[in-house]
Amino acid sequence: MASMAAAFASTAPAAHGHRHGLRPHPPSLSLRTHFSPPSAGRRGGGSGLRVRSGLIEPDGGRLAQLVVEEPLRRARTRESLTLPRVKLSRIDLEWVHVLSEGWASPLRGFMRESEFLQTLHFNALRLADGAVVNMSVPIVLAVDDADRHMIGESSKVALFDANDNPTAILSNIEIYKHPKEERIARTWGTTAPGLPYVEEAITNAGNWLIGGDLEVLEPIKYEDGLDRFRLSPANLREEFTRRNADAVFAFQLRNPVHNGHALLMTDTRRRLLEMGYKNPILLLHPLGGFTKADDVPLSWRMKQHEKVLEDGVLDPETTVVSIFPSPMHYAGPTEVQWHAKARINAGANFYIVGRDPAGMGHPVEKRDLYDADHGKKVLSMAPGLERLNILPFKVAAYDKTQGKMAFFDPSRPQDFLFISGTKMRTLAKNKESPPDGFMCPGGWKVLVDYYDSLAPADNGKVPEAVPA
Amino acid sequence: MASMAAAFASTAPAAHGHRHGLRPHPPSLSLRTHFSPPSAGRRGGGSGLRVRSGLIEPDGGRLAQLVVEEPLRRARTRESLTLPRVKLSRIDLEWVHVLSEGWASPLRGFMRESEFLQTLHFNALRLADGAVVNMSVPIVLAVDDADRHMIGESSKVALFDANDNPTAILSNIEIYKHPKEERIARTWGTTAPGLPYVEEAITNAGNWLIGGDLEVLEPIKYEDGLDRFRLSPANLREEFTRRNADAVFAFQLRNPVHNGHALLMTDTRRRLLEMGYKNPILLLHPLGGFTKADDVPLSWRMKQHEKVLEDGVLDPETTVVSIFPSPMHYAGPTEVQWHAKARINAGANFYIVGRDPAGMGHPVEKRDLYDADHGKKVLSMAPGLERLNILPFKVAAYDKTQGKMAFFDPSRPQDFLFISGTKMRTLAKNKESPPDGFMCPGGWKVLVDYYDSLAPADNGKVPEAVPA
Repeated sequence: MASMAAAFASTAPAAHGHRHGLRPHPPSLSLRTHFSPPSAGRRGGGSGLRVRSGLIEPDGGRLAQLVVEEPLRRARTRESLTLPRVKLSRIDLEWVHVLSEGWASPLRGFMRESEFLQTLHFNALRLADGAVVNMSVPIVLAVDDADRHMIGESSKVALFDANDNPTAILSNIEIYKHPKEERIARTWGTTAPGLPYVEEAITNAGNWLIGGDLEVLEPIKYEDGLDRFRLSPANLREEFTRRNADAVFAFQLRNPVHNGHALLMTDTRRRLLEMGYKNPILLLHPLGGFTKADDVPLSWRMKQHEKVLEDGVLDPETTVVSIFPSPMHYAGPTEVQWHAKARINAGANFYIVGRDPAGMGHPVEKRDLYDADHGKKVLSMAPGLERLNILPFKVAAYDKTQGKMAFFDPSRPQDFLFISGTKMRTLAKNKESPPDGFMCPGGWKVLVDYYDSLAPADNGKVPEAVPA
Repeated sequence: MASMAAAFASTAPAAHGHRHGLRPHPPSLSLRTHFSPPSAGRRGGGSGLRVRSGLIEPDGGRLAQLVVEEPLRRARTRESLTLPRVKLSRIDLEWVHVLSEGWASPLRGFMRESEFLQTLHFNALRLADGAVVNMSVPIVLAVDDADRHMIGESSKVALFDANDNPTAILSNIEIYKHPKEERIARTWGTTAPGLPYVEEAITNAGNWLIGGDLEVLEPIKYEDGLDRFRLSPANLREEFTRRNADAVFAFQLRNPVHNGHALLMTDTRRRLLEMGYKNPILLLHPLGGFTKADDVPLSWRMKQHEKVLEDGVLDPETTVVSIFPSPMHYAGPTEVQWHAKARINAGANFYIVGRDPAGMGHPVEKRDLYDADHGKKVLSMAPGLERLNILPFKVAAYDKTQGKMAFFDPSRPQDFLFISGTKMRTLAKNKESPPDGFMCPGGWKVLVDYYDSLAPADNGKVPEAVPA
């Protein structure tokens, strides 16, 4: 993965002198107007007029970094062996990872009830100083009746991973009821059976939630060959600073990149340059945690992204590819806020939002679960995200007259071909080629190889990916 | 209803000179601390330290008052006859009433999509100036496909009541999808069948919502003998000012008042006096809109409240009894915010919140729908309600040693008798008496008469009221 490695070859923490004295950002209010986000007229308060220098501040002013420092590590590990033990699921561990690096700043551990309730009802947390930060998905740890009994009156527990290694300590714990139905209804706007995260992490989880302050014994690693792409918010901030970025625009994805995506990202950089930024950097940020069975797995997506950079579709000089460790909820307008908020903590001040972000088909009815426009509308109005510039996705399609992906021109619809996820999947499965210019050949080959690698099920069907 | 009439005998609008120069309120932060609301440590921002004079300001600074003034009434009525017509259900009309008098200030009509989405996701609206007001239940008007077709490109519609009288004009309309499942899930935290408001007003409602600016042709009246008790927020503010109130504490109820409630209200006044207020006024504010079939009907509740005042359980001099025109959602922590917010608009700066406010049994499972403590917790953290002092309900029970209702003393639990709603109901149905001192005899007789008036169903069962 030469290109990607090059893109962040020198990000070892503290390996570089930070260059200070970045150009002040242009006033962000004018940016919002230029991009005409849906909220342009609603923000008010004037805070957008403040001219900032350096990267956008993390929520709460400081990145939560919860990995125990070396001098204390051995003592904490010893202590963990003496405490009541809670076993972490794969998704629990992903949340430990997310919390440990400060993606959810200012959260410093699994939510206590007051944070859980604010998340469910308001998608935001009020801090002690009165400031409001966005927080739309519950980051909670479930325990069952037996765990609760075993924990007893202890004020601390140790969290153990699937291999029974001590991973973290949770202190000043609070145990409270896990209102599953209400959590699901308020997070997803439905309680229909078949929501992937719910089936994986909620339905069979315990009836209690345990919140507290988290100390993680060692940086979380997965040993899957991809750990070097898992840059923390602090790593990313160092990288953006090293590159002298004066704007960072984040693109969340969980699907293969086609040339329509690439066009959008390239065009966004062009527009940021036009606005007066000197060095806008793209954070191409595939989601690395839990995804549903029919999504393309992370390792294949990373191969595909590598090819996209190698083939020169995106410029490695102005692109950082890294993995976002969060699990996926598929909770549409609620989840897109989390995706955006976490990227603020990584230093992004622009966030690209597409049609139906974090959406999926309704698990029971024949329709999409969410209105395709609600995601960007909700994002543009969300409390705690006022500092972030929301960039609505322009629709790209295959322009038959140019033989390449281009922004859709409604004055000549007959010239455009919309290649749906289903179409793309069918082509890749059948080892057919998409129209020239839809995706770089190297990237397409990865997709074909992925479907080739799947052992067909008895009925000849293979899992379906939805690369929209 | 002599006592109640006396309580607001002279509230005809503009009949009195307002007395200005009310004592400034004591700093509200100290009040919060004194009462130890759950949020005492979380508010921050210092706004609670501001010393205010006069009644609390309405949300958005000004009461929305949407009834057309006399000189324009005839012209608007004529215009309404020329517009596409939308028929109002009983609950729709109750919302027209609520909106027309400014209970939902600063809303000036049925919600457009941006307000609807903010309500569902954030329980709050951001205003043009950046200020945030609470808004937790959607105030929306549904129309069906045929209505939508009939409205066509018109920018206005006329709203007609059940008797085909023109009631209001909705202007600058916006028609958008009615995502029923999502609305229900996010408002109630469940989609279980059997939610009373859902069955009455959503399940069979149209698939579109229509928002816009409301002009109501005449004040809404129900001609049920109770209109004189339906004071608008403006009327109530006049009454509180006339009485020289320096604190107004609101008590929402939809059930008969027993002596435990009365004790709580009397005790609240005593504590407010201790804090330095000179004339705290109680707003005893029964909900008058849609309620579920097994609640005691409004007319019987008003008779019961009258007896409570007549019997001297509450002091008419310091109590205003009035009807709150909103329909009931039974949406627990979400709805209690609406109940509180609407009372700010009526001038209340203290709000008493009990166990499980606006709660009910789960319609399908054998449990309460909401955690009994979530209501007061959510209320204490709700965006836009920072100005309101939340007074958590103290638990009252029948003290056998004193032969009266008293605050529960956990050091001698054996002395207390908890008289459940079911117990109270059974006694009233069987024309038995509760323990002396549970409810004033006149009030109890009203309840017995109510159950007596019900024609027993074939199986001998009568509808069950839940007076908790």
